[in-house]
Amino acid sequence: MRDALVAAAFRLFVERGYEETTVDDIVALAGVGRRSFFRYFPSKEDVVFPDHERCLADMRAFLDAGDDTSDDPVLRVCDAARLVLRMYAENPTFSVQRYRLTKKVPGLRAYEVSVVRRYERALAEYLRRRFAGRPGDTLRADVIAAAVVAAHNNGLRSWLRSDGKGDAEASVDQALGYVQRTFGEAPVPVVAQTAEDVVVVVSRRDTPLWRVVQEIESAFGRA
Amino acid sequence: MRDALVAAAFRLFVERGYEETTVDDIVALAGVGRRSFFRYFPSKEDVVFPDHERCLADMRAFLDAGDDTSDDPVLRVCDAARLVLRMYAENPTFSVQRYRLTKKVPGLRAYEVSVVRRYERALAEYLRRRFAGRPGDTLRADVIAAAVVAAHNNGLRSWLRSDGKGDAEASVDQALGYVQRTFGEAPVPVVAQTAEDVVVVVSRRDTPLWRVVQEIESAFGRA
Repeated sequence: MRDALVAAAFRLFVERGYEETTVDDIVALAGVGRRSFFRYFPSKEDVVFPDHERCLADMRAFLDAGDDTSDDPVLRVCDAARLVLRMYAENPTFSVQRYRLTKKVPGLRAYEVSVVRRYERALAEYLRRRFAGRPGDTLRADVIAAAVVAAHNNGLRSWLRSDGKGDAEASVDQALGYVQRTFGEAPVPVVAQTAEDVVVVVSRRDTPLWRVVQEIESAFGRA
Repeated sequence: MRDALVAAAFRLFVERGYEETTVDDIVALAGVGRRSFFRYFPSKEDVVFPDHERCLADMRAFLDAGDDTSDDPVLRVCDAARLVLRMYAENPTFSVQRYRLTKKVPGLRAYEVSVVRRYERALAEYLRRRFAGRPGDTLRADVIAAAVVAAHNNGLRSWLRSDGKGDAEASVDQALGYVQRTFGEAPVPVVAQTAEDVVVVVSRRDTPLWRVVQEIESAFGRA
């Protein structure tokens, strides 16, 4: 019944427009009562984004299920963000319709902004736990979470603007790769030496960039 | 009259609570009519955040007034973010009261999230213009704008949680410094050499970290 309500709602939103469609119109088309609608959706806005609550729960479960002693935290939040992408990519037609609808209706944009903020907070809370006790832990957690969300959304929007015809995974992988290169970590040593105002860094080529940057930061006296 | 309305509103919000205060209560205390209230504020929520529209306009003007041929774009968006900090720091008592109020009222949190998003978009639009034509321009613009906003808010919240007693500028400077070190740029050369699987980077100590990282990325074959 939930799926039938979503299908009826979107048919009407596309045909008549979002503002012009009432909950009564939706339940009439779906052949159910008003109470059934509100059992599944607190408001008309919620039927536009029927899967975010489940996806947020999946994301939190995925982050909690990780191994906090061995997982690269930046890689883990990037993989968590990919759960959102997969939700969109499962149903390209619906996702593209919703993208167009959301662009036109300010109330839906506001709803989307608040959902995006909830994903960002879930990622930031995980990173704060993983970085706890290190210098600048909450700052680094908040900045990386925001960067992951911005990169994910940049990749997702590129795909939505292609009307769902391009490769969603590739678009988001490329975007998240930028964040991983900038912030990712792993335990491989680097040697940095300084003499007067010159810094020399020697590193194995397979050292994560994050680790190299950290070493350089401390060599530059900026960490 | 605008200031009197804000003062009356906050006195009532603190005394009675936000939900329990009506626009009629506010105008009665301020000694003006309802129409005067709505001339300044579209809704009760807007009186809680009376300065964001002005600050957003100031931010856009500041970004437009820059020299696009010589300014470091990351430094410029960090300085633009400092305009928001200054708005909060101008009136610590009011800012701390509002912070506490916003934490308690979901509608105000949603309003704040949407305002934050508008700042982020203003910064991203500027960076997209500055980076236009470079590889990954919109991605880099969106990620850096999100990182600047997250860092600014991390520093701002630290100060608000200290009840406005700490040094707001120092708190935000420290947070934005992390973003500038990670993403900042400037035209100072770095030499990177590779032999087998070892990378050697020689750099002047005053080289921006961004420039060093770029050189290492290309040496590591990951750029």
